[in-house]
Amino acid sequence: MSVLLIEDVTLMTMDRGGRIIPKGAVLADSGEITYVGPAAELPQELSGDVTRIAGRGRVALPGLINAHTHAAMTLFRGYADDLPLQEWLETKIFPIEARLTAEDVYWGTLLACIEMIRSGTTTFADMYFFMDEAARAVEESGIRASLSIGMGSLDGKGDEKLARSAEFCEKWHGAAGGRITTMLGPHAPYTCSRSFLSKVAQRAADLGVGVHIHISETEREVSDSRKQFRMSPVKFVEAGGILQVPVLAAHCVAVSDEDIDILADYKVKVAHNPGSNMKLASGVAPVPKMIESGIKVGLGTDGAASNNNLDMIEEMRLAALLHKVSLRESTAMPARTCLEMATIDGAICLGLEDSIGSIEVGKRADIILMDFDAPHLSPTSTVDLSSHIVYSSCGADVSTVIIDGRVVMDERKIVGIDEEEIMLEVDKRALRLVAGG
Amino acid sequence: MSVLLIEDVTLMTMDRGGRIIPKGAVLADSGEITYVGPAAELPQELSGDVTRIAGRGRVALPGLINAHTHAAMTLFRGYADDLPLQEWLETKIFPIEARLTAEDVYWGTLLACIEMIRSGTTTFADMYFFMDEAARAVEESGIRASLSIGMGSLDGKGDEKLARSAEFCEKWHGAAGGRITTMLGPHAPYTCSRSFLSKVAQRAADLGVGVHIHISETEREVSDSRKQFRMSPVKFVEAGGILQVPVLAAHCVAVSDEDIDILADYKVKVAHNPGSNMKLASGVAPVPKMIESGIKVGLGTDGAASNNNLDMIEEMRLAALLHKVSLRESTAMPARTCLEMATIDGAICLGLEDSIGSIEVGKRADIILMDFDAPHLSPTSTVDLSSHIVYSSCGADVSTVIIDGRVVMDERKIVGIDEEEIMLEVDKRALRLVAGG
Repeated sequence: MSVLLIEDVTLMTMDRGGRIIPKGAVLADSGEITYVGPAAELPQELSGDVTRIAGRGRVALPGLINAHTHAAMTLFRGYADDLPLQEWLETKIFPIEARLTAEDVYWGTLLACIEMIRSGTTTFADMYFFMDEAARAVEESGIRASLSIGMGSLDGKGDEKLARSAEFCEKWHGAAGGRITTMLGPHAPYTCSRSFLSKVAQRAADLGVGVHIHISETEREVSDSRKQFRMSPVKFVEAGGILQVPVLAAHCVAVSDEDIDILADYKVKVAHNPGSNMKLASGVAPVPKMIESGIKVGLGTDGAASNNNLDMIEEMRLAALLHKVSLRESTAMPARTCLEMATIDGAICLGLEDSIGSIEVGKRADIILMDFDAPHLSPTSTVDLSSHIVYSSCGADVSTVIIDGRVVMDERKIVGIDEEEIMLEVDKRALRLVAGG
Repeated sequence: MSVLLIEDVTLMTMDRGGRIIPKGAVLADSGEITYVGPAAELPQELSGDVTRIAGRGRVALPGLINAHTHAAMTLFRGYADDLPLQEWLETKIFPIEARLTAEDVYWGTLLACIEMIRSGTTTFADMYFFMDEAARAVEESGIRASLSIGMGSLDGKGDEKLARSAEFCEKWHGAAGGRITTMLGPHAPYTCSRSFLSKVAQRAADLGVGVHIHISETEREVSDSRKQFRMSPVKFVEAGGILQVPVLAAHCVAVSDEDIDILADYKVKVAHNPGSNMKLASGVAPVPKMIESGIKVGLGTDGAASNNNLDMIEEMRLAALLHKVSLRESTAMPARTCLEMATIDGAICLGLEDSIGSIEVGKRADIILMDFDAPHLSPTSTVDLSSHIVYSSCGADVSTVIIDGRVVMDERKIVGIDEEEIMLEVDKRALRLVAGG
């Protein structure tokens, strides 16, 4: 396969050393990074078919990792906002979701993939329905994803769903040249029985995959759980045995100190979704406290219906700002921490830290370039780069995106995909869904 | 002067009726809007020199109004973040501000002007030093601004500063073809004596200008005021007589119900700065309560050192999200309210509602076009436009900016200004300032 060379770029490796290399270079062969360092010390003359990417004025960093979303919900973007949560769910989202077809999910996910690529996301963790179609969209778009079918068991069809989910994992885990991985997706403690969670845990262990689940998104979920089960959602999933396997827990907004201790003990990974938590008025997850307890916290956008975009740069900024004001501590959640959450810690959340999350020799070449030659990113000589990315930049500053060594966006142009067709299809399908068809 | 025609555009007028015209047109003659309505009903055939702007796929709305900033602080963007407030001010911002020259302020303000234009802001309220140079930058960039010199009186030089400020107002009020207006800028209740505030109020009344002031940015400011003066900052400025003239009060984070009543009684206008308040961990201004009390609240970015950009679309989003999560009410601060704050209510804050803030016949043509043909703004057919702008869009979606009837940005290209030169100058000057020169 081809050799890719990024030349003369400012490199933020996001590896353990946190190196910044001013005139750096990255070399990748067949999608694997083979050199990271000063451009002047490139090991050899390159011959043959080399894709060269000019990095001057650009900052290269690992592709961003969206640790929790429901990609196809782009179909519902902007359809219903500023409503009370229950009314939003029951009169808007659930009825329209009930009308979704597999093809809808394909197009909605494809739109999400190009939107994410455009704003620098190279990997996402998705939980939704019709996931074969989502996988097809991931495969075609060139993005990387960890996919799970959302499952509830309260309708008595848990076993059937689990069987289908397991099939999905067997079919897709490692597909698209390794870009697709899978998890099992028990939706939440309030939609899954304890015995179902036990079965999911067992099956995940058998399959060698992790579990993606929503936990403690709202205070109401917690009080309902305490009323019904006399324990918090975290204790409920612990009792169900689910924490015995690798778990990616979305939200964890309403968690007690005791809950945090449990999450830390089991090395549960948390996906923090500040935009969604703010927009739905769910609350403020105690992220600084979780990080202090040793929990790895990644960042997610949640679905576009509750965000309303899939821009991880915005998510970093919201995380940085929300916790500062919430704790009244201007030193909380520094920019560098937010950038780690969106890169290397996101990789850990998805169990992919050996292959992505930092720019290091031996890892896959998931790399984004940001254009720093812009008024809102000036000056550049006096600044902390993390600070500019987190506090000043936006998704549109991402100029080039490389995933698995392949250029999927080149100077803001998506490669090999007809964006207009996707937008037209999504618009048509959104109209039909809203109209009740 | 020239005639400008925007054709076949989706129009959000932001006037009292809140009209949305799907295939709309706007006509402006010598910078004044002469027609707003369906493109099909344009009153006449146009002859002569007409600048035509194609609006298909675009949404036109009034230019955004940044109701509080310190434009030249772009020079300090990203220089010092994630620090405790006092350390940030005393060891970083104050020393570097002391080294600022008039030329620095010119270049820093010019950078701010193009950054604001690029993200859809057409008017800003500025308070800083060397304001003649800031005015020069405003004049050259084509933007509209309400300018004030920041004044403190505790060094005993209040009278001198007030005299200089009054001169500034006389020189610049109405300059640049009316694009520049002025205010007096007593910095804050904790940097101005009560007798000085009285003089400022008298002078403002004589000059026929308003007053731009910071009030109750932090809890600490309030407790200090209560200790020293046995009254809140709001009561202190009331006692100083400053509320007798039109007042634009920035922040109002730590205001009591009694303070809110006073602000409402005097028809004080408030500039809410959610990004800065979050980043500096100042707190959450009770904006929904203030709006309910009848106070007009605009939106500001504050300076780039505490934000760290001047993007008003981001500020709308932060306002929408912050108050929802803070009040645990997903219906708080709907998108439409935030859009009003950034347009017509911002105009009211600056005392300019007769000439800007909405697209209406008789007002000046300050209009921005946003490109909705983008994945993160799809679908478009099923959505509330305010919702897409506030929750999904970003500053880079602004394609064309018209100020006072003149195209200042055309399809993302700033007209008649060398952006590269500005960025190079700002970088050079930022380096010198940081180095202590």
